[in-house]
Amino acid sequence: MENLQTLADEIHAELSAREDRGRVADYIPQLATVSAQKFGIAIAPLDGPVAVAGDADEAFSIQSISKLFTLTLALGQVGDRVWDRVGREPSGNAFNSIVQLEHEQGRPRNPFVNAGAIAVTDIILGGHRPKEALGEILRFVRFLADDDAINIDRLVAQSEQAHGDRNLALAHFMKSFGVIKHPPAEVLGVYFHQCAIAMSCRQLAQAGLFLAANGRNPRTGFNVVSARRARRINALMMTCGHYDGAGDFAFRVGLPGKSGVGGGILVIVPHRAVVAVWSPGLDANGNSLLGTAALELLVQRTGWSVFG
Amino acid sequence: MENLQTLADEIHAELSAREDRGRVADYIPQLATVSAQKFGIAIAPLDGPVAVAGDADEAFSIQSISKLFTLTLALGQVGDRVWDRVGREPSGNAFNSIVQLEHEQGRPRNPFVNAGAIAVTDIILGGHRPKEALGEILRFVRFLADDDAINIDRLVAQSEQAHGDRNLALAHFMKSFGVIKHPPAEVLGVYFHQCAIAMSCRQLAQAGLFLAANGRNPRTGFNVVSARRARRINALMMTCGHYDGAGDFAFRVGLPGKSGVGGGILVIVPHRAVVAVWSPGLDANGNSLLGTAALELLVQRTGWSVFG
Amino acid sequence: MENLQTLADEIHAELSAREDRGRVADYIPQLATVSAQKFGIAIAPLDGPVAVAGDADEAFSIQSISKLFTLTLALGQVGDRVWDRVGREPSGNAFNSIVQLEHEQGRPRNPFVNAGAIAVTDIILGGHRPKEALGEILRFVRFLADDDAINIDRLVAQSEQAHGDRNLALAHFMKSFGVIKHPPAEVLGVYFHQCAIAMSCRQLAQAGLFLAANGRNPRTGFNVVSARRARRINALMMTCGHYDGAGDFAFRVGLPGKSGVGGGILVIVPHRAVVAVWSPGLDANGNSLLGTAALELLVQRTGWSVFG
Amino acid sequence: MENLQTLADEIHAELSAREDRGRVADYIPQLATVSAQKFGIAIAPLDGPVAVAGDADEAFSIQSISKLFTLTLALGQVGDRVWDRVGREPSGNAFNSIVQLEHEQGRPRNPFVNAGAIAVTDIILGGHRPKEALGEILRFVRFLADDDAINIDRLVAQSEQAHGDRNLALAHFMKSFGVIKHPPAEVLGVYFHQCAIAMSCRQLAQAGLFLAANGRNPRTGFNVVSARRARRINALMMTCGHYDGAGDFAFRVGLPGKSGVGGGILVIVPHRAVVAVWSPGLDANGNSLLGTAALELLVQRTGWSVFG
Repeated sequence: MENLQTLADEIHAELSAREDRGRVADYIPQLATVSAQKFGIAIAPLDGPVAVAGDADEAFSIQSISKLFTLTLALGQVGDRVWDRVGREPSGNAFNSIVQLEHEQGRPRNPFVNAGAIAVTDIILGGHRPKEALGEILRFVRFLADDDAINIDRLVAQSEQAHGDRNLALAHFMKSFGVIKHPPAEVLGVYFHQCAIAMSCRQLAQAGLFLAANGRNPRTGFNVVSARRARRINALMMTCGHYDGAGDFAFRVGLPGKSGVGGGILVIVPHRAVVAVWSPGLDANGNSLLGTAALELLVQRTGWSVFG
Repeated sequence: MENLQTLADEIHAELSAREDRGRVADYIPQLATVSAQKFGIAIAPLDGPVAVAGDADEAFSIQSISKLFTLTLALGQVGDRVWDRVGREPSGNAFNSIVQLEHEQGRPRNPFVNAGAIAVTDIILGGHRPKEALGEILRFVRFLADDDAINIDRLVAQSEQAHGDRNLALAHFMKSFGVIKHPPAEVLGVYFHQCAIAMSCRQLAQAGLFLAANGRNPRTGFNVVSARRARRINALMMTCGHYDGAGDFAFRVGLPGKSGVGGGILVIVPHRAVVAVWSPGLDANGNSLLGTAALELLVQRTGWSVFG
Repeated sequence: MENLQTLADEIHAELSAREDRGRVADYIPQLATVSAQKFGIAIAPLDGPVAVAGDADEAFSIQSISKLFTLTLALGQVGDRVWDRVGREPSGNAFNSIVQLEHEQGRPRNPFVNAGAIAVTDIILGGHRPKEALGEILRFVRFLADDDAINIDRLVAQSEQAHGDRNLALAHFMKSFGVIKHPPAEVLGVYFHQCAIAMSCRQLAQAGLFLAANGRNPRTGFNVVSARRARRINALMMTCGHYDGAGDFAFRVGLPGKSGVGGGILVIVPHRAVVAVWSPGLDANGNSLLGTAALELLVQRTGWSVFG
Repeated sequence: MENLQTLADEIHAELSAREDRGRVADYIPQLATVSAQKFGIAIAPLDGPVAVAGDADEAFSIQSISKLFTLTLALGQVGDRVWDRVGREPSGNAFNSIVQLEHEQGRPRNPFVNAGAIAVTDIILGGHRPKEALGEILRFVRFLADDDAINIDRLVAQSEQAHGDRNLALAHFMKSFGVIKHPPAEVLGVYFHQCAIAMSCRQLAQAGLFLAANGRNPRTGFNVVSARRARRINALMMTCGHYDGAGDFAFRVGLPGKSGVGGGILVIVPHRAVVAVWSPGLDANGNSLLGTAALELLVQRTGWSVFG
């Protein structure tokens, strides 16, 4: 196999020169303050050291990548009853669309569109107080990454809250159909904070390892989910992990992944590794432009696509 | 590795007893005449004999599985210019929906929804006469399967033609946007016949082998497409191959596949094998009910999911 | 002219016997408590006494008929700037649909769908406190009807508030586009109370008189709006006053009208009279079944259609 | 009453100077050849001479105004069974939208959107040959206008036919739901020719007189429809006669009317007159810009709005 450190360095060197880096998310002011020049990559193999390059140890807002962790947590709590409330199909719409919700009686298409992730957070709330639910999510992410230094960026969370009307619309809409059970303001209090979790590429890559290794974190030895559930989560990332760009990501990269508007992307290479990239400039679908290019290059060099 | 023949026999035996087999397609009368009791499976490894069970040598209407072959043919003819006319994203709609076409200026979401496949057939027409284009498609399928006995079921083609208004609507709609170039009646003349190609599970499995083997048919030794293109076609099957059931198929089976309303499903196991199943009863999304169950069982037994 | 009292009595007598009265609104529990047997009619000519029959003096929840009064009030306050935020076209959708809002950047189609009425209430709020705005609306309705006994049904308002998620979704959605300016909870606090105003048929008919008389209430002598504005409000009632049943109401009744899910309908007969009917059972579009039938009969007897 | 000739002259004089005349329809080349400078108006009172000004005696393509005549004809042939196939509600969409058809099982919203008019033409075909049906339509229009000089512009009809894919899509779509019965090519053969009927403002105004006079043409003395049906057709024009601009037209003009992309508008003033205007430049909704302005001015001068 390739020397992963060399690979990370090469990819970083090749792409750092690119000028077209897309547009940094500005739907909340706090995200818009991040420099478009940031670029990091971390490759965590199932064993051996994590290879990193660039800004791989700088924490950024994981945003929608948090949906992967809350889905895993909710599946652990209520099992397949998650699917009573949330579908498993790609949406064919933007991440924050409400049209589909009206056409399908308030049931979100999948756990990775905003509406679906809000419904998953409602499941995690499960009668607890928002603060407790949020604490549980944070503990779970720290446990996955084996790193207690992970925290929430309160400024980002406040900024989300201050510009949260679109998500509140989704939540109230689902509430009117009984798809979420708690008061929308409470659910979104948790949701905005989970999206504001700040992690580095290294931390993200480590947190995803269980998905590449039959559900067991090979570094800590903890079983997180069953092998079957790990496969299924990977499948959902493949078909729904990049909003309305999932088809293109599968076409170009060929690995299950989850992106966030903070510019991060986490991808799983089953039985081999987990890769996290970060570059804040986004493409039209809200996925990191340079990050996607980096993953495309990585797959070309390694042949790690799941598709042959 | 498993003994494939034993595997095929076991799957056939276990599922033959199932009573719930879904609903045989009746949108054209000729398809509705097929018995819901039919059930076949063929497993073609990269080398060694094809394992078959049940009705695996009986030809059936491949319907939308033909879209996989015409896409491959069109990519060979015009390369990535195919994507100027057709997208690569899951649709979030039924296979024959026209709503998305209006919202996106006549450009189909992917080559596996009806509109996209009609646009691909229009590319293959390329100024030729319908008869010639159809001849080329048939020769290509025979070449892929290495079997000159494959033919078109004329009764099915006539039945499609007699009930083709929905597809004609799609074609005229795209024509009004310039997405297709030839007269809709000509394009659909070819399209209805390609859908009426009759193949057995064994023939289908053999025809798909190039996609499991880096683009080269390991039995004939012919290079069909590049390794990269094979990966990309597999990716499209994963995200778009089962209409509005692609997410669920990835979740349950975890392999790239293409289904047809005739009840066939073709799945690719990269670097290992190709599997074709056939059972005419369909689920709500138009995919074979027993066929999907058979593939789910196969993946459980073999661990062949691409997702770990 | 017809003897209006005889007319009211005849209509009441003929329709009271009808058994099919549609379905009483149950989306809020408080509305569902009203008896489907209630049926009243009031005909207020430009001069002379109001003719009433049945439960014409019993107050009921005017619900969406309030949208007519708030629109008039907002036009008085900010003039045609109302149309910067709200359109004037029929929606082709249910009264509480959010789909159109997404397709048209948060701008409601007209002031009589829920979203549009909420935007109008946001205009009336205009920096005031909710209590003041609500007071102003109530005073305006009392002024129009020349009756200070009109009040808000607090139980209905609370019931609305407790089941207001769908409307909160609309409000937050518009807020995310800047179409409404105040906090959604404040706007809806006013909106739910305006919908809970309780009026009798007699009071409603009197309150609408200015619209039949060039903008001037012929009983009080007060000019409410200009003649041109009165015409325009009538036009909006004709094209948008019955949700997705406006076409059918124009076809059958042929008069500008506004209905509410409480079972009331207010119609304007330009230069002649105003008619209010009330029967709580609704048709599929949410308009009073018996009320519409009563108006159809009235127009047959009087020839009062504006269409000839 | 006003001196109608003076009125026509004044309106013509005032508006002729306007430079902003919108955009001449170019979806078929033959329409695009007409000069944007054309402007005519004809006012036909129930008795007395027709007042005309400008290009009121020059024939132009009536386009969608023909839908009014075919609806009247079909109602005469099959009565209210027309409504089994076509609705009576405004669409909230562009005139040639197909989205609504998919959401509502192929049933057009009203007889004035393209799909609805095509269904009406299918009713008129009624087993006859296209040539006969077209002859019947033409004879009916001549009968209404009392003018045998009215003819079809064959060049326009051919141009429509050559660019008819969007309408063919609508027709095939409806055919797939059984809403139209004849082959789409035959129905559209008739439809494209009916749209290509050429009439002057004077002829149009005369043809519409029955709708202003209880269903009886006051010049010829012929009863065309019952008074009730005349009212109902007027109601449909009010709510659905200007595509997605019907609300605005009612708001600004306040009269039932039907427009065509050739730049003509026909409006009914119940019990008074019929007015036809023509100016080929269109607004964003496909309605004549200058024509609408002329009618707005006319209503201001005369107070002819039905709304008071």
